[in-house]
Order: sequence, then structure tokens, then C-alpha cells
Amino acid sequence: MKKVINDPNHVVDEMITGLVTAYPNLLKRLPNTNVVVRTDAPAEGKVGIVSGGGSGHEPAHAGYVGKGMLDAAVVGEVFTSPTPDQVLEAIKAVDSGKGVLLVIKNYTGDVMNFEMAKEMAEMEGIQVDQVIVNDDVAVEDSTFTIGRRGIAGTVFVHKIAGALAENGASLEEVKSIAEKTIANVRSMGVALSACTVPAASKPSFTLAENEMEIGIGIHGEPGIERVPLKPADQITEILVNKILSDIDYERSEVAVMINGLGATPEMELHIVYRKLSELLGNKEIKIFQTWVGEYMTSLEMAGFSITLLKLDQELKNLLTGKVKTIAFHV
Amino acid sequence: MKKVINDPNHVVDEMITGLVTAYPNLLKRLPNTNVVVRTDAPAEGKVGIVSGGGSGHEPAHAGYVGKGMLDAAVVGEVFTSPTPDQVLEAIKAVDSGKGVLLVIKNYTGDVMNFEMAKEMAEMEGIQVDQVIVNDDVAVEDSTFTIGRRGIAGTVFVHKIAGALAENGASLEEVKSIAEKTIANVRSMGVALSACTVPAASKPSFTLAENEMEIGIGIHGEPGIERVPLKPADQITEILVNKILSDIDYERSEVAVMINGLGATPEMELHIVYRKLSELLGNKEIKIFQTWVGEYMTSLEMAGFSITLLKLDQELKNLLTGKVKTIAFHV
Repeated sequence: MKKVINDPNHVVDEMITGLVTAYPNLLKRLPNTNVVVRTDAPAEGKVGIVSGGGSGHEPAHAGYVGKGMLDAAVVGEVFTSPTPDQVLEAIKAVDSGKGVLLVIKNYTGDVMNFEMAKEMAEMEGIQVDQVIVNDDVAVEDSTFTIGRRGIAGTVFVHKIAGALAENGASLEEVKSIAEKTIANVRSMGVALSACTVPAASKPSFTLAENEMEIGIGIHGEPGIERVPLKPADQITEILVNKILSDIDYERSEVAVMINGLGATPEMELHIVYRKLSELLGNKEIKIFQTWVGEYMTSLEMAGFSITLLKLDQELKNLLTGKVKTIAFHV
Repeated sequence: MKKVINDPNHVVDEMITGLVTAYPNLLKRLPNTNVVVRTDAPAEGKVGIVSGGGSGHEPAHAGYVGKGMLDAAVVGEVFTSPTPDQVLEAIKAVDSGKGVLLVIKNYTGDVMNFEMAKEMAEMEGIQVDQVIVNDDVAVEDSTFTIGRRGIAGTVFVHKIAGALAENGASLEEVKSIAEKTIANVRSMGVALSACTVPAASKPSFTLAENEMEIGIGIHGEPGIERVPLKPADQITEILVNKILSDIDYERSEVAVMINGLGATPEMELHIVYRKLSELLGNKEIKIFQTWVGEYMTSLEMAGFSITLLKLDQELKNLLTGKVKTIAFHV
């Protein structure tokens, strides 16, 4: 597998250096860590919001650090949870006295390490709480997860919790809105090809030339089934139906994200959205706002995910509130 | 090659439908055309700016339609110039009486068809002028081009001309600033893998597992040479040195774009930027602002391009002026 890298063992360090050098007005790196924070951290008078996880999912999560969204992203090795000491550094760097909320994607390693960091921070007198995002409706339990996995819906959680925190809400309020978002967001993906972790010599799995995997995880964890590649409209219908069967979206208003996993041309994402909007229209589900692009990738995996977030007026206001990050725009 | 499409002959139509449905507040499609315009077209009191070209380069160019940038994008079939009648429709739709500037990437088909549309519009009494972007320093003349090709630097031309047009400048002034931008922008790319046009059954060329092509075009046109894959830092140095040897950037201030061609993980683009900023620093070239992401792709090609734009105060102001598009943010 060809990659534009130097030493496979230094990809994360070099990526972070590049990232904070490219966007010095938005981001800085905590010295001697893999933690990326807002340049104004700790932002005064607000709850700090920390997320993160393995790298390889860019722009998640450092692309969502900035005013109105995250205060810090903790960057793990590729597809590997960051260690508790790194998460602790992030917590300490963003706490302004109002406490810190951890937004954790539901993977066993992430949950364990973020919770350990939470305990360590509490011992240092910092108020910390957490939410766990599990928006992926594909499967219960999988390779790295007990329960459902957290995927692209996490970005909506960042935005909504980030907006409320920016308004000066308390830790309890910010946690509560994050939980409300999690309760209303559902996602599901499909892959057409695998990806290769830089330090590995070959892809972590293979898909035959005419095969796709429905419900795959963002690290290549098994999905629901491997089936022959179908036309875009049919793939879209499969994903949407699975999401809609999970909670009642009928006659509601939703935010939509069509998320490319890395190697899928934007053209194809728009073709998917065309069918999706038709399917939602048939169900009298109104689309409030749409994001089409790469928001939570799996290195150079081909495929995409669909995310739906059921909205009320409060969530709408927060979702479209002012934000200044590299990767999320309203 | 696996693609998330329905009928290969309908990809452009379905993509445009999806795109304008996803962003109804920003974009609309002219009925019975493949032209995407601002919802407020023709925007009153300003010069209209029209660009476009073959599709497969998304988010170019419809992603740059919006206040402060383009008024219309004419969308051709994949890697195929739009026809003159489509360009004419765009010109007519965006002319508010102050005239229209065509921003054309230097490919023989595009130049011919846009120029023909210009003549047709002039016969209808619309004032039209044009600029031709040729930022790619890789090769003189190539498969589809006499002279240098136009690639990602075109996005900076859109932004700067669009900002001046939004300020109410005349067609002559807008053309002049576009030409100034073109005179100061240079790009060069590299590919690690080919891409497949949806209607074709196989990639238009192949690169061996350990091979890359320096200076390749965004349609896979031949570059300077095929060489064994090198570390990211060396690839970056090759591209930067070729750009810097073309015009004198020393002790100047530049805007930088690291543009992914479709399948290159964002992680790798940041690794490239890390080296680029070091190399420019060594030459006392100051980086004013940076854009890292996918701005002008080649379907699912793996690879990237580097663009440098030499700035003065006027160009800086216009480059960072307010803009509201899907794909370009300041």
C-alpha cells in the first residue's frame, strides 16, 4: 500500500506538527503531548469539551477544535486509543474552573482510558463528566466494542455540546444536551475497500472486486453482511431503512450527514444524497440542514456513512450556532 | 473499479441534483442545464464570474459558487469540457449588466468552448471577458493542453476575483486582479495511483505498486517522470523546488494550498505541510495562510498537489475577504 509518509512510527507526531503549523490562529499543541487545543485554552467562563481517539479518522477530531465546538482533541496512534495521561493533559489544559466534559466514542479502549483520565483529574480537583456516543446502528458489540460503536454522529455531538458550552452553560447542562443529541442521532456505513494502517504492510481485511460490506466499522470491524456491490440507490436505501427502523423519525425534522470514509469521490456522496432526500421525503421527514463531505474517515477506505439527527428547536439553534473550526462549517 | 453510482451515464445529472438539494440556500440549478448558480443570480450590481470544466474534480467548481466567489459553475461530463451552449446559459444567468468574467482552466477543450460561448454571449449584447489559468509548472504542453495546465491554483483565482467583484469593481478591474493572481500562482502535483472514469471499465493508466508519477495532470495526463515512491519529505522537496525555480518567491509572503487528489488521507497532507513549511522557512518565504484538504480532485486518485501564491497587501485582503460557499472557507 502506497502512502505519502516518512517513518510509519512518526506519522502521528508529524501530522500534528503539520496541522498546528498550518492553522496557528486556531490550534496549538500542548508541549510534549499529542493533544491539540484551542489557542485560547483554557477559554475563560466556559465548560471545556475534550474529545479524541485513535488517529486515521481526520478531520476528526482536531478539525473540530475551535470556538463553538471542542476545546481539545487527544490524538492517539493510528486506530488506537490515546493513553490516560494524554487525556489528563487535555483536561487540565482546558479547565477554566467550570469543569470539563469528555465526549467519548464507544470503543472499549477509549472508554477505559478516558474514564481513567477522568478519575485522575478528579483527584486533582477538576470537575469532569463524560458522555459516550454510540450512534452506529449496524451491530451490537463488535471487535473493539461492547454495545454500539460511535462514528460520524459524534461530530454533531461536538457541535451541539460545544455551542451550549460557548454560551456559558454549566457542566450539567452541557452533559445533558450532549446526551439528548446522542439519544437522537443514528448512523450507518458501508465499505467498498479496506485501508492500511501505516505501520502494517497490508490491509487489515480484503473485499473482493465485486463486494461491499454493509455496516462496517471505521476501523474495519465486521458489519452486518458482505454482499455483491449494488447501485447507489439500493445501497442508500439499505442504510436509510436500517437507521429509520431504529427510532421513529416520521414527520420529524432532521440534520443529515453524508460522510465519505476517505477514498470515495465527492461526486458519489452527492449521488447518495439525491436518493436519501427522496427517501426521507417519502416518509415526510423534513431535512433541516445537510453536510456532505469527509467528517470522520478511515484512512483511504472507500465507502461512506449516513447520519441522521432528529431535531427540535433547541438542537437546531445549537447546531447552526456560530463556529470557527477547520472542518465544520454552518 | 467499484463506484457508488447508478447508471454511469447519469452520474453528472444525479450529482448535480444531489448537490443543489443538499445546499438549497446557497445553490440552484438552471432548469434543463448542468449549470449551478448562486440562489441570488443574477446578483445585482456586480460583475458575474463563471467557471467550470469537466466534473470529477469536486468540490471544483460548484463548491466555490456563492457570495464572494463564483456566480456560476458549468459542469461538464466527467473529465470533459462543458459545451458552449451550457456556458452561454451560465453567462446569461449571472449577467446583471456589469458584464461577466470567465475563469477558464487551460485545457484545449475548455478554452475552445468557453471562448465560443463568449462570442455567442457578445452577439446577444452581453459584455464578457476571460482569463486562462495555467498554474501547473510540471510540463509545457500535454495530452489535452497547449501550454501549461490549470489546476488547484484556480481556486485562489476564483476567490480573489470573486472578492473584488463582490466589492462592485468593473469587469476590467476584476479581469486585471484575476490576471495578477494567475501571474503569481504556481502548482505542481504527484500521483500514487490512477482513477477510473465511471463510464470506463478500467483506470486510464496504471502505476506499479512502488511507483509514483511526478507532475501528473488532474486527468492523468503524463507528468515529468515515473520514479520509485519516496518518503513524504523527499516528494515535498521535489515539488516545492520545481515551483520555486519557476518564479522568485524569496523573502515574499505566500498563500499555500495542499490539495488532496481524492484518495489521500488528510493525515498525509498534514505530513507534507510540515515539510513544506520548513522548506519555505529555510528560504525566508513567509506563509500568510494555508488551506489543507481536497479542493480540486481527480475522482479517487491518490496523490496531492502543492500550490503557492505570492501575495501583496491587495491580494491578501481579497483572499481573506468574507465568503460563503460549500468548500472554501477563510
